[in-house]
Amino acid sequence: MAKKNDAIISKLKNIGEGVLDDVESGHNPSMDIMTRSINNVHFDEASGVIKLGNDRQKRFYFNVNQAKKFLQTLLIAKQIKTLIEQDKPPLSIRQLFYTLKHEIPGAGENTFDVQEESDPIIEDIEAITDTLREDLNLIATPNGVISGPMVVEDKTGDVLDFTRMGSAGGAVPPIVEDDYFHIKEMSADYILVVEKYAVWNLLNQEKYWKKNNCLLMTGKGQPARAERRLLARFAEEFDIPIYIFTDMDPWGYYIYSVYKYGSINLAFFSEKAACPPAKYIGLSVRDVMDFQLPKSSWIKLNDEDNKRIEEISSYPWFQKERWQKELSDLKKFGYKIEQDALVSKSIEFTSNNYLPHKIENKEFLE
Amino acid sequence: MAKKNDAIISKLKNIGEGVLDDVESGHNPSMDIMTRSINNVHFDEASGVIKLGNDRQKRFYFNVNQAKKFLQTLLIAKQIKTLIEQDKPPLSIRQLFYTLKHEIPGAGENTFDVQEESDPIIEDIEAITDTLREDLNLIATPNGVISGPMVVEDKTGDVLDFTRMGSAGGAVPPIVEDDYFHIKEMSADYILVVEKYAVWNLLNQEKYWKKNNCLLMTGKGQPARAERRLLARFAEEFDIPIYIFTDMDPWGYYIYSVYKYGSINLAFFSEKAACPPAKYIGLSVRDVMDFQLPKSSWIKLNDEDNKRIEEISSYPWFQKERWQKELSDLKKFGYKIEQDALVSKSIEFTSNNYLPHKIENKEFLE
Repeated sequence: MAKKNDAIISKLKNIGEGVLDDVESGHNPSMDIMTRSINNVHFDEASGVIKLGNDRQKRFYFNVNQAKKFLQTLLIAKQIKTLIEQDKPPLSIRQLFYTLKHEIPGAGENTFDVQEESDPIIEDIEAITDTLREDLNLIATPNGVISGPMVVEDKTGDVLDFTRMGSAGGAVPPIVEDDYFHIKEMSADYILVVEKYAVWNLLNQEKYWKKNNCLLMTGKGQPARAERRLLARFAEEFDIPIYIFTDMDPWGYYIYSVYKYGSINLAFFSEKAACPPAKYIGLSVRDVMDFQLPKSSWIKLNDEDNKRIEEISSYPWFQKERWQKELSDLKKFGYKIEQDALVSKSIEFTSNNYLPHKIENKEFLE
Repeated sequence: MAKKNDAIISKLKNIGEGVLDDVESGHNPSMDIMTRSINNVHFDEASGVIKLGNDRQKRFYFNVNQAKKFLQTLLIAKQIKTLIEQDKPPLSIRQLFYTLKHEIPGAGENTFDVQEESDPIIEDIEAITDTLREDLNLIATPNGVISGPMVVEDKTGDVLDFTRMGSAGGAVPPIVEDDYFHIKEMSADYILVVEKYAVWNLLNQEKYWKKNNCLLMTGKGQPARAERRLLARFAEEFDIPIYIFTDMDPWGYYIYSVYKYGSINLAFFSEKAACPPAKYIGLSVRDVMDFQLPKSSWIKLNDEDNKRIEEISSYPWFQKERWQKELSDLKKFGYKIEQDALVSKSIEFTSNNYLPHKIENKEFLE
């Protein structure tokens, strides 16, 4: 822990020392910033992950357009360093913004006016130091819950047994790195990630995780950083299958892809939070016939859905033949189906029929 | 548990039996439905709670405009009864909708087309049977987390110690009624409800709940049903102060009022989920001077904020003199301040200065 922080502090120091060198050698002080625009983001076929490329830009002090941002970058880097050195609790990026927002004496101007100024700089610093925001002591709000055979020692010293978390399941904490969330035991045969809380709740109440010896997690829709990063850790540390279970619609497919490949707008994070082994368990168009899903549970695709199908069809990470087929089958079928709708077969259908059948027959999309 | 369910089943049966009586006596079959429109909702000064009044309407079978709704009401009541009798796990209201949505044979019409048809009927049945949705085995997604000196025995048999829930805190389950969430021990001196997760997280990381022997909860913004109902249970079962801590803006004040008084659109639920003893601990306009909150943390009120101030100023439950003063002071001041912004004084300011000062000096708004 101390060692990890030492390394991070030294990386943050490097930013300032580079500037100091420039000053001392009479150059225009500058910093190397990774380009985070879409042009420098690519899908890396080999690793199966959305990655930030190597393009860099210089941010100069003596440049009317860059001077304020230059100052802001140093302020944020310094503040993060100080907070880590003083062993302060992690803050949200909004709280960090507030610790830094103040009037510059005599200048009649604020260091920062709105959070839209500090957020991208935090991302710059993540990329410059090759360090996750969470290791810089910054958090985002987590939403997920988990149940199943895993025992974790939390940074607080508390030992959390996820087979004994009651109806609520265990909450995903804001930081899931090893120093905060040390996985002591994990005996699950696989991990099942469920899009919707209501479906997770049904499976949890039925003790699906116990009957099937699996870890059962939901990110409550589009996952937050913590759930994505935790799934990535599971993939790094345990050699067990990971299944993603969502609605049969482009939004559900996209949630799967965010877990598996990452996302364009957080490309730096994606490298560290992607989960390449994740497989899509459903719902998929062939399920409609295979499981005789009743027509009353179909919902007509609307314009927005169709537009979104077009969009994700063009994403490089959806180019595999079977995904292109799935997307065009969905469009042809003309209806979406929610995972909640499986209860129309029977309350137990999801746990007793659908999931076991898909897993037994290895009917996954990848 | 069995007894409670027997009582609920008998109430649900009553609906059908009333209809049967009408049929047998040759009357147009009808049901008494509580009127849930705004005209039948009032703020009850005596209990300090938003309540549904006693107005009722009849829903008839032989009425072109009501026949479908009549049928739907019976279908839902029957389904809820069946699911309870069969001891099924609780469903979301969307899942319940899917269990009932099917084509009526020969009619070429569905029982239900969209969930907007079934949701209000569930509310009707809650009111007819005077039973919370959660006791009808229906859930909404909870969002909250809690830490502090409380031990709960969950319906699963798991014993949950909220002093040992790590960095994440303990998740609020979807049903917090005694049969699901039995509070075995509670030794907190008070309960502090925090609007925002980031502020809850900071206080939790600082072990505020331990240093101050309190229960620390957040509903992550506007609370869901489970957090509201849980706070109401705390007020019913424990004679300790309950403080609500939000942003200084009309949205924060409104969150306080939802916890304390309930809300218009869920008036039936409000009677059972309101928390009359709750006190507003801040942020309030006088804090700006008292704590010298720096100008850099003020945010100019925008049109939407001002409009919302006007709106909540007219609500009956904001008519107390000091709330009217607070609202007009906010308007005059012209700025809002987020609770997150207290970190601009220092990271520890919220836990070491602000909250202890307010509690010691009993500076609450009620």
